[in-house]
Amino acid sequence: MYRNKNIKKTELAELGEFGLIKHLTRDFKIVNPSTLKSIGDDAAVISNESGEILLSTDLLIEGVHFDLAYVPLKHLGYKAAVVNFSDIAAMNGTPEQITVSIALSNRFPLEAIEELYEGIQLASDKYKVDIVGGDTSTSNSGLFISITVVGRANKEDITYRDGANLNELVYVSGDLGAAYMGLLLLKREKLVFQANPEVQPELTGHDYILERQLKPEARTDIVEALKVHGIKPTSMIDISDGLASEILHICDSSGKGCMIYEDKIPVDITTSTMAEEMNIDPTTAALNGGEDYELLLTIKQQDYEKIKNIPGLTPIGHITEAEDGVNLIARGGALVPLTAQGWDAFLKNKE
Amino acid sequence: MYRNKNIKKTELAELGEFGLIKHLTRDFKIVNPSTLKSIGDDAAVISNESGEILLSTDLLIEGVHFDLAYVPLKHLGYKAAVVNFSDIAAMNGTPEQITVSIALSNRFPLEAIEELYEGIQLASDKYKVDIVGGDTSTSNSGLFISITVVGRANKEDITYRDGANLNELVYVSGDLGAAYMGLLLLKREKLVFQANPEVQPELTGHDYILERQLKPEARTDIVEALKVHGIKPTSMIDISDGLASEILHICDSSGKGCMIYEDKIPVDITTSTMAEEMNIDPTTAALNGGEDYELLLTIKQQDYEKIKNIPGLTPIGHITEAEDGVNLIARGGALVPLTAQGWDAFLKNKE
Repeated sequence: MYRNKNIKKTELAELGEFGLIKHLTRDFKIVNPSTLKSIGDDAAVISNESGEILLSTDLLIEGVHFDLAYVPLKHLGYKAAVVNFSDIAAMNGTPEQITVSIALSNRFPLEAIEELYEGIQLASDKYKVDIVGGDTSTSNSGLFISITVVGRANKEDITYRDGANLNELVYVSGDLGAAYMGLLLLKREKLVFQANPEVQPELTGHDYILERQLKPEARTDIVEALKVHGIKPTSMIDISDGLASEILHICDSSGKGCMIYEDKIPVDITTSTMAEEMNIDPTTAALNGGEDYELLLTIKQQDYEKIKNIPGLTPIGHITEAEDGVNLIARGGALVPLTAQGWDAFLKNKE
Repeated sequence: MYRNKNIKKTELAELGEFGLIKHLTRDFKIVNPSTLKSIGDDAAVISNESGEILLSTDLLIEGVHFDLAYVPLKHLGYKAAVVNFSDIAAMNGTPEQITVSIALSNRFPLEAIEELYEGIQLASDKYKVDIVGGDTSTSNSGLFISITVVGRANKEDITYRDGANLNELVYVSGDLGAAYMGLLLLKREKLVFQANPEVQPELTGHDYILERQLKPEARTDIVEALKVHGIKPTSMIDISDGLASEILHICDSSGKGCMIYEDKIPVDITTSTMAEEMNIDPTTAALNGGEDYELLLTIKQQDYEKIKNIPGLTPIGHITEAEDGVNLIARGGALVPLTAQGWDAFLKNKE
């Protein structure tokens, strides 16, 4: 419903595959000295001079991960790149190169794909990442985006999910649940629009939650700040599937339990306002919503004084023995086990 | 038409995404010392200890790149991995890690995906490559496979497309056109089967061209042999789109022309027999067919004596000045320019 329907349309068949790649990549500049050879050969070449190599990949599929009725293509491109950068940040590393593979049906004109690439390029420029390769193809239906990212970190700096120890502190960056409330708002306004195309969507005043959903950022700034303050997290993960799922990953991998305090979970006021309007528990949005791309990390107790100096990091609990389980202390004081299925609001209300 | 329709069917929804990944990757073993951390974190970690990093990616899409009516899923998985290994071979490198992203509609049961993964794993085992990550998702229609490969090569060994020099010799590995004739045979038998499902496909006696289409190999053995004999190609590319297209890439990138001799192009007898049966010029199959995944390379004249000792490498021409163009000397002696559109059989027959 936000798309400009008057854009010029160039058929992809006019360009062909090689022409399309040449056209889309014509403005790509190389910024990382580790990129020795970019697009234009059988493979890109990346220097091995400093740091180990981090490798991660994400699929984004129309109708599964996004709905073009309310996701502008430029934002989609930006987000597709950023979610990969976020995986590298979660390893305490720096993203440096990506490959971009795209399959799309011929209902997309060249100009649509240019918008998508503009978003990918904008994110790459901002995070100083080089686009070094990829593949393009037609598809029989819909749009598929597969991005693979290469990052760097010195071996001693890499953070895994399995390093959390007893009594360590659990921190989260930024705030949670906003991306999910942004998604619910977009879905609601899509239904309104479908019911009556004359009604304009009610999106003004909701910039924050919409931006969190449509144009998330990877917290490479937090990775940087931790380094500056001499803190290496003992474990770290990015929050793509909601806080509950991610803390379970850390506890499972580390063979530990934890205690998370509901009243410590950072939730923006605009998130809780929208949650209230939609009759949703804001804690449910934070625990199960996902797509916040914030970092969840554990640190040693002795790093407590140092981490206080980093804005945007909130302590939300601590690590316990595995047999104590993975629990939330609800506002009312009840102990609620977190499960792989996520947060059970019903259980919380019962106790 | 070859699929076993009686296999057990497990709904993918029963497992969920994490369950599916865990299930599919349960047997994956790590064989490369450079794989420091595989599946199970936000990113894989790859050592920087030896050699530069090569990175390449390929998309395979149902209905565009393959037809499940005649491609068994296990073969498809094998081929999807091998075409990526071939890109690394073309850089004179060794493939070491891949990530595998798959999107599939819910018409596929778990057992179908297991077959696909078996093929990927078989290829990975054979080429000593580690599967270190990936993503799985549902799709609204069809099967999408996106594989990214990481390879290694010492900086001084890497071969690019742009290194061909005047008077150097052009070589090709193996033989060409068989994969294309295999594809035409499969397409023909599919039509026969569609017209009358009682008629069994006539595939016996055509093992070679069918295997070349369904289960190609990457010529890492040639890369190895070149090293053993102390030869570094001045340029190299793998033949995925047909000889004509690939030699044009080398000549364009190197700013050179070339002369290729039709009677030198290696074509297997089973390829030319099938081509004759189908009333196709075997040279057309070799020049335009593609999917042979052989290597096309140029070497210095002084390496001629050394390269003679490597079986399976055939000299097919030499590099000329750019202004001489990219030409084929046809069997009858006519000079035929090769174009990006490929081989023009009509033009050849006219002269």
